[in-house]
Amino acid sequence: MAEFETIRVSTKGFCDIINITPQLEGVLSKSKIRNGIVNLFVSGSTASISAIEYEPNLIRDMEEALEKIAPKDKTYHHSKTWHDDNGFSHVRATLMKPGLSIPFRDKKPLLGTWQQCVLLDFDNRPREREINVTVIGE
Amino acid sequence: MAEFETIRVSTKGFCDIINITPQLEGVLSKSKIRNGIVNLFVSGSTASISAIEYEPNLIRDMEEALEKIAPKDKTYHHSKTWHDDNGFSHVRATLMKPGLSIPFRDKKPLLGTWQQCVLLDFDNRPREREINVTVIGE
Amino acid sequence: MAEFETIRVSTKGFCDIINITPQLEGVLSKSKIRNGIVNLFVSGSTASISAIEYEPNLIRDMEEALEKIAPKDKTYHHSKTWHDDNGFSHVRATLMKPGLSIPFRDKKPLLGTWQQCVLLDFDNRPREREINVTVIGE
Repeated sequence: MAEFETIRVSTKGFCDIINITPQLEGVLSKSKIRNGIVNLFVSGSTASISAIEYEPNLIRDMEEALEKIAPKDKTYHHSKTWHDDNGFSHVRATLMKPGLSIPFRDKKPLLGTWQQCVLLDFDNRPREREINVTVIGE
Repeated sequence: MAEFETIRVSTKGFCDIINITPQLEGVLSKSKIRNGIVNLFVSGSTASISAIEYEPNLIRDMEEALEKIAPKDKTYHHSKTWHDDNGFSHVRATLMKPGLSIPFRDKKPLLGTWQQCVLLDFDNRPREREINVTVIGE
Repeated sequence: MAEFETIRVSTKGFCDIINITPQLEGVLSKSKIRNGIVNLFVSGSTASISAIEYEPNLIRDMEEALEKIAPKDKTYHHSKTWHDDNGFSHVRATLMKPGLSIPFRDKKPLLGTWQQCVLLDFDNRPREREINVTVIGE
């Protein structure tokens, strides 16, 4: 069996990390599929899905680690193409990839107590994001 | 339902980033499965699958970001094992992982307009790559 | 069809990289599902699943690359929250993500000869890890 949903999130961009676990739990609780995997995928090349212990200090650490990997203020070749100055956003998103598959049992995601599913929006402006949710199982 | 295909790609190695979206769209358009997820997985420890806005300037930015993370010219312990000098290739591939699952609807991948699916070949020589494609859904 | 298993692993933490391919092969060989994808997912925010050529020199290279990305001895904001000094563990895990989906055919994972599936435990102490295994296919 397969089911299809969409989670919509408003972001501030600039490495805005948003806890989407409540929305994910909502989708699974209403699903007819009890056990399986759920794939979350953001259609767009400047955002990613991952998991993190969602607490403000760690969110700052994650932002700083990504700033080291692909700094905002570096000049990127990509700027020559569109002049939109979000090369850092694209590099981070390609590195971390747009999707994540999470197992679930009895309609609940198998996340740890201190493990939340998050959208990371790396773009350099606020965005309205659509996350495609695909539930597969039985 | 599940279907199984292979996408074959010739690469130049050295962080050759190849747009495989046309091949992926070809597989999905011929599939009997209309909606679900498609898993792309490269069997080999020096390549990855991800998504990127496929334009030449951003490709250069991505190469430079990966060169910073795992430089080609560093001496890697791995060279002591096989003397093939591709430690940087392995490190990049393990970090970025060999696979990606992408949702599709009506036989089309849910990629953004400026989001292409790519093979990244990190090896230090040309390679013939096989990407295993698994289509799951209904 | 879907099947559900658990792989249990004892780790030493501190970027302990453990080959779980034998356990994965064991799960698939006993499965009633012949072809499909298998999702491995570690419930916990300081570990990841990836693939690597499992040989000791490359394992050291990988540890050094991750040490450069998120050094152990840096002071992380996360320490202010729990005083458990494992900010580096979380950052690495969020970057590399908690799961991986691998295709299999005839009950065997489609890994390359020099490509093993691994658990990377980034925490700063030994851990007993549970990896949730979800087999999807037919």
